[in-house]
Amino acid sequence: MTPQIPSLDRFRVMLAEAPAPDAAAVDGARARNGQLTKPPCALGRLEDLAIWYAGWRGTARPVLERPQILIFAGNHGVAAHGVSAFPPEVTVQMVANFRAGGAAINQLARAFGATMAVHALELDRPTADFTTGPAMTEADVLAALNTGWNAVDPEADLLVTGEMGIGNTTSAAAIALALYGGQAEDWVGRGTGVDDAGLARKAGVVADGVSRHASRDPLEVLRCLGGREIAAMAGAMARARVLRIPLILDGFIACAAAAVLHATAPGALDHAVAGHRSAEGAHGALLARLGKEPLLSLSLRLGEGSGAATAIGILKAAGACHSGMATLAEAGVSTG
Amino acid sequence: MTPQIPSLDRFRVMLAEAPAPDAAAVDGARARNGQLTKPPCALGRLEDLAIWYAGWRGTARPVLERPQILIFAGNHGVAAHGVSAFPPEVTVQMVANFRAGGAAINQLARAFGATMAVHALELDRPTADFTTGPAMTEADVLAALNTGWNAVDPEADLLVTGEMGIGNTTSAAAIALALYGGQAEDWVGRGTGVDDAGLARKAGVVADGVSRHASRDPLEVLRCLGGREIAAMAGAMARARVLRIPLILDGFIACAAAAVLHATAPGALDHAVAGHRSAEGAHGALLARLGKEPLLSLSLRLGEGSGAATAIGILKAAGACHSGMATLAEAGVSTG
Repeated sequence: MTPQIPSLDRFRVMLAEAPAPDAAAVDGARARNGQLTKPPCALGRLEDLAIWYAGWRGTARPVLERPQILIFAGNHGVAAHGVSAFPPEVTVQMVANFRAGGAAINQLARAFGATMAVHALELDRPTADFTTGPAMTEADVLAALNTGWNAVDPEADLLVTGEMGIGNTTSAAAIALALYGGQAEDWVGRGTGVDDAGLARKAGVVADGVSRHASRDPLEVLRCLGGREIAAMAGAMARARVLRIPLILDGFIACAAAAVLHATAPGALDHAVAGHRSAEGAHGALLARLGKEPLLSLSLRLGEGSGAATAIGILKAAGACHSGMATLAEAGVSTG
Repeated sequence: MTPQIPSLDRFRVMLAEAPAPDAAAVDGARARNGQLTKPPCALGRLEDLAIWYAGWRGTARPVLERPQILIFAGNHGVAAHGVSAFPPEVTVQMVANFRAGGAAINQLARAFGATMAVHALELDRPTADFTTGPAMTEADVLAALNTGWNAVDPEADLLVTGEMGIGNTTSAAAIALALYGGQAEDWVGRGTGVDDAGLARKAGVVADGVSRHASRDPLEVLRCLGGREIAAMAGAMARARVLRIPLILDGFIACAAAAVLHATAPGALDHAVAGHRSAEGAHGALLARLGKEPLLSLSLRLGEGSGAATAIGILKAAGACHSGMATLAEAGVSTG
């Protein structure tokens, strides 16, 4: 069977040709918003979110009831450099914890009524150490993109992608440095809590990796510096874009995946809002490059899609108000 | 029957004698937090919220399942000065809308699984115009405090208080000016959308009212410059404090009620978090006086408890993670 994403060139075309939101639904939602029982603009950003969401769902009065959370896990060759506060075996241990229902993201999925699935990507075959060669072959990155693409439920009405992978803030920092420039120090942070010496090692590893791989083509950057879970998130985000399923971006690593799409096709993240601003140092800078203003800023830095999942409640609130409120005429409220 | 709050003097004593959070539950929750399957502090503010919530609920592993939203409505004599973009009859119309389930707060209550009740306080008897005399008699303010006090469900495990009352941002601004000083212009904002001329009138009315009523005793300030719905919110907040039910503060008007309690007894708001920072200009300054950092900042300025209700999701997320996650030992995760 031909994979949904047969080649990186084809993937570029798919992103470039992804559909626009439904203009009639946007107009209808804007008109409805103006008639609801509240002063104009009194629900602030919830109003903008509802109208944006309506456009992607293709209806002026959408209902949000099937959010999906997808967690992708991968292992990283660069973890051997001691760039993380945790040993690499934690990736597979945490995958077991996700499957047993014991992680933070499991509780958040339950709290916000989301389905959740975990995809472990060849954990016994880490990506190559990108300071010595490309992290992935083209076959590797395509396989991961397709895993993400196929994981999306076409019936979902909201998507969150999250990740687990010891060493993956190093990979994400390398992607950001390759795409946006600056110094390695601008993009590395403490991840799960690395100490000062680890942070310095991390910056060195990122600088080495980025200088070794000359191409600045975003999908080549993903292949040479990324990881399987990062590519899988990109594949899932792209599928959501094509299916017009709204997306909530999570933290630094999810945004590195998103940045690859954004750099490939300018409109590739039009279906996305930023769920939160992570405490991982460079996340704010990455969000600024993506042009996204986060919904929450609660100093999370866990990954797993946890910040984006927490923001599901905001989207639900926006949709519930927009689609459930009475109009001024229906309620017989004077308009001054 | 003797009312629960028989006098303002007794109310002061009740606030001063309100119980502390459960220190053993705080210690137990902090210990549990340190054992969960995540890097230390990786859930950021959600961790602080869970530990704080555990202390007030008196258990190291609390479950949040009975949030209550109370909406109080009142009419204001000062509305006759043209300080609002909406006519006074909107208060009773919106009460009908709350009862019919058509307002924003009804949708938010449903979205976050909260019960909701609406208390209309003598809408056909507005408070007196505070530029000519005290807004309320002592009997009026005690009746409203008791309405709020009695409205709290002792079985609730989280409280949100909201309000509706054309003219009540003017009353809230007058309370803030009387309690904290400054100029009337520092505390007035556009409320539901008053124009420049209305804003200037509003500042004049606030300055007049505050200069007319000399007492700076917080409960006298409430009586002379407040409104029935503001006093009722204060009564409900105080009951929650005594019952150790955690409270989410809403916007400018709810925080004016909270400020009266805070100025009366320093620990009166220890059970409260700020749900959001309203777009109503002076709300940020009021939160700063209360020492509260808002959970959300989404430019809401609706009242009705809508910002606080939106933040229920954050509290639910915090509680669900804290009480539902596996420990590192339970999940067999390495700790580095």
